[in-house]
Amino acid sequence: MKHIEYLLPEEIEKRSFEIIEEELGRLGIRLAAEEADITKRVIHTSADFDYAKTLVYSENAVPILKDFIRNGADIVTDTNMALAGINKKKLAGFGGAAHCFMADGEVAREAKQRHVTRAAVSMERAAKLGKPTIFAIGNAPTALLRLYELASEGNFRPSFVIGVPVGFVNVEAAKERMMETDIPYIINVGRKGGSNVAAAICNAALYAL
Amino acid sequence: MKHIEYLLPEEIEKRSFEIIEEELGRLGIRLAAEEADITKRVIHTSADFDYAKTLVYSENAVPILKDFIRNGADIVTDTNMALAGINKKKLAGFGGAAHCFMADGEVAREAKQRHVTRAAVSMERAAKLGKPTIFAIGNAPTALLRLYELASEGNFRPSFVIGVPVGFVNVEAAKERMMETDIPYIINVGRKGGSNVAAAICNAALYAL
Repeated sequence: MKHIEYLLPEEIEKRSFEIIEEELGRLGIRLAAEEADITKRVIHTSADFDYAKTLVYSENAVPILKDFIRNGADIVTDTNMALAGINKKKLAGFGGAAHCFMADGEVAREAKQRHVTRAAVSMERAAKLGKPTIFAIGNAPTALLRLYELASEGNFRPSFVIGVPVGFVNVEAAKERMMETDIPYIINVGRKGGSNVAAAICNAALYAL
Repeated sequence: MKHIEYLLPEEIEKRSFEIIEEELGRLGIRLAAEEADITKRVIHTSADFDYAKTLVYSENAVPILKDFIRNGADIVTDTNMALAGINKKKLAGFGGAAHCFMADGEVAREAKQRHVTRAAVSMERAAKLGKPTIFAIGNAPTALLRLYELASEGNFRPSFVIGVPVGFVNVEAAKERMMETDIPYIINVGRKGGSNVAAAICNAALYAL
């Protein structure tokens, strides 16, 4: 039977990150200094060391992301779970707000009418916020594809894309397309990701500011 | 470059589950009929086939869980993310409500004063709901440990425990202890789990009713 470590609440997270660092060392993985905070927090939220190999950062992604947050950018998610997980108080301290339009009745009606996903319509709604917007996509590849299309058509440019949808249909294709654009991104290649991963990336950037 | 499958929104989930089944077949994994819906939904939410091997169900866990839901049991989570992910409308159709006490100011104050986690105090609060309660623990091992202690002291008995906290400190120990009790459970052994996994298990049971 595993023993219990008696730690104060504030010590648990510190000890967890120490274990993650030890294990990355054993695996022979060295993370780029700038990216380490984010990748380690994703491992902390998933206990999955695959992310050390599959998280891909565009050039200068982390300072770019931090600059947007520092300057008051909003964050739009594709699930209420990711929205719930983001530290909105910390974000508000920089002037940003977090949104999710998935539960909006108007979005649902329009999606049904057009035979597209609510996630796709949610992105169109987000494109009208009229301020720099970071997209944190942890669930729906159709959200990522719609952002790609909107950007390709030249009508809208996401400030930053956290592209970590999870799943089996169009997930890898959507990530590949987004990585072809010149929009700065953090993307997890392959099938894995999730709302928890999307929120963890946002929080890691917020906590590092 | 991966091609895009053009599917209607309602077809995406169906196709995803077909792919999961094909892949389980290739891996030579046969899931017990009763448990398949839940395990497959966890894989759907994580793209992680490890869960097919690490999710452990106590005897008759699935019919027991479904019976509690059908009879109006409440669900208590240890994160607002898990709470956001649970289909609360569907749960309400059976007379149940979902709760999370983590953001409660009283809980935070008491935890600070006693040098314990908010998750532990949240469980004590939940123990006073006065009705059959399913616990869906996707984050804090201290929530699971507190439930174990409350049950061992004989003062409170959770109706059912979904024990899928994620992490590196006390997570495995907490799961092992809970599995020693006679409380019915679904537990993911090892470090993995998460709020998304906790919500997926609740939803799989709800959708199968």
